[in-house]
Amino acid sequence: MKEVTIGIDIGGTNTKIGIVDREGSCLVYKSIETAADQPVEVFLSLLFKAIEDLKETLTEPHDIKAVGIGAPNGNYYAGTIEKAANLKGWGDYVPLANIISERLGIPVSLTNDANAAALGEMKYGVAKGMKNFIVITLGTGLGSGIIVNGDLLYGHDGFAGEFGHINVVPNGRQCGCGSKGCLETYVSATGLVRNMIELIAENNGGSHLDQYNFHTISSKMIFDAAEDGDPIAAQAFEMTGEILGKALADAIAIFSPEAIILFGGMASSGDRIMEPTRRAMEEHTIRVFKGKTKLLISDLKGDNTAILGASALAWQELDKTK
Amino acid sequence: MKEVTIGIDIGGTNTKIGIVDREGSCLVYKSIETAADQPVEVFLSLLFKAIEDLKETLTEPHDIKAVGIGAPNGNYYAGTIEKAANLKGWGDYVPLANIISERLGIPVSLTNDANAAALGEMKYGVAKGMKNFIVITLGTGLGSGIIVNGDLLYGHDGFAGEFGHINVVPNGRQCGCGSKGCLETYVSATGLVRNMIELIAENNGGSHLDQYNFHTISSKMIFDAAEDGDPIAAQAFEMTGEILGKALADAIAIFSPEAIILFGGMASSGDRIMEPTRRAMEEHTIRVFKGKTKLLISDLKGDNTAILGASALAWQELDKTK
Repeated sequence: MKEVTIGIDIGGTNTKIGIVDREGSCLVYKSIETAADQPVEVFLSLLFKAIEDLKETLTEPHDIKAVGIGAPNGNYYAGTIEKAANLKGWGDYVPLANIISERLGIPVSLTNDANAAALGEMKYGVAKGMKNFIVITLGTGLGSGIIVNGDLLYGHDGFAGEFGHINVVPNGRQCGCGSKGCLETYVSATGLVRNMIELIAENNGGSHLDQYNFHTISSKMIFDAAEDGDPIAAQAFEMTGEILGKALADAIAIFSPEAIILFGGMASSGDRIMEPTRRAMEEHTIRVFKGKTKLLISDLKGDNTAILGASALAWQELDKTK
Repeated sequence: MKEVTIGIDIGGTNTKIGIVDREGSCLVYKSIETAADQPVEVFLSLLFKAIEDLKETLTEPHDIKAVGIGAPNGNYYAGTIEKAANLKGWGDYVPLANIISERLGIPVSLTNDANAAALGEMKYGVAKGMKNFIVITLGTGLGSGIIVNGDLLYGHDGFAGEFGHINVVPNGRQCGCGSKGCLETYVSATGLVRNMIELIAENNGGSHLDQYNFHTISSKMIFDAAEDGDPIAAQAFEMTGEILGKALADAIAIFSPEAIILFGGMASSGDRIMEPTRRAMEEHTIRVFKGKTKLLISDLKGDNTAILGASALAWQELDKTK
């Protein structure tokens, strides 16, 4: 019987569920609605139904050993989702790991999505064999999963790794977290849009995108405009990369990691984001660490990357109990 | 036979050596010259002589199990001191742990002084029982020892924890590390003096200390002036604490530590430095972490604190091999 785990990636809109073997093959997977504005019970019944469906589609006999979950505001220590802004209907405190474990009768562990991404890179991705590295997830916001001595950095309360909320501009942009000038207000899909809008204002227009408003411009539109030779769009990527690269130089001074890995939507912009990021990172890295830390892009591709990360958590927890 | 370890704290001018029991009593200790501008052999002969002297002064029978060393630019992984600016005569690369271990025939481990301080706090000090905390050493420079999951954060190359070299002012003050605007150029004994000089310039004098030059003003003089009601000296402490507190808010976002502990000369300025530091730290800490991290002062007192830290390393390594 083949040993497998279930990986679950909970997003604000959709949740992806997959059954994954030890080698990182996602044998079957499915996407369901997260139903974030309804009570969590709605999501749970969709989830359990989807798991039953997936089990039936497996052709080989299998033994499901454990479940791993990546979720916004996931607390590893408590197995809970706490005050997740994009899961409002679920309430402030959802003991999700316990609920699912009781129902399925197997161990369930939970962490936030950036931490799951870091575990995925360590088990299946570019960080295979590394024990000290940082994954930066560039999505709507900026998350980080930090591996120290081969383990995730959780901190005292399970919520460590909020690298998106270090201050990069004193009294800078308003952040959703309540503070001002946080890294993710400049470096993320929405940060890129804010950079673009600011640069349109600074340049008094000058971009093909100046006809669109704040709500209609997307990071994809900025990427396409930059590739088409729009100078302001290119500058928006430069600005984003420069701020990220400087912040990464600080991360290097603190962690001296073997690698920093960019993950998520914006990382797929390739050199547009990597080139200015690498340049600023190398310029601002202090002498003793210069040239020691690799800047990499995740090579986990396709719809299943977040599922792989969640399943990596399940495997890691299983291996701990051995 | 009483089990003991030897703790050695290497400074730029003096080196302290002590024999310490498991409970953290420093039974005997001695200070020798570091002889930093002469070949390391000079230091080694002074050191071995001092250890022999200390052993003879012990009244009880004892069994020396191991040696721990705290040293500037100490590399834990390699047991070496590398490119230490204040140990110029010793050369760029000193395999000190091996040399001493071969001579004494017992295990020798080595780390940098801030890391040793963190281990000392965990074994004997205010961090007893904590598994996630940060020690900030405020001396000539600013060092940090970061404990994650009960272990020191060493990073990929053994040099992690250079929190003194995160950037706090873009294109700010020149730092000895080669970069500009590093935290320690504002927050340290020398940083405090630079703050004071800058404030004297800004205020066109206005302090009892404006008759002294950059080289003659000390942090002690600034403290005494502040206590005597000198407004500019008081402002220099405010400035130092504000910059430190903001940087600590970033450290909290990244590490979510149970406590941050200030250690070293400037920490003994008490409320002068603690009050503005705490205020800025609390103001800038993001909502999810507010009120969760304690700001503490080291309660290890006296000449032996650095020896205790170094001996804590020796005990920790012994316990690992059990």
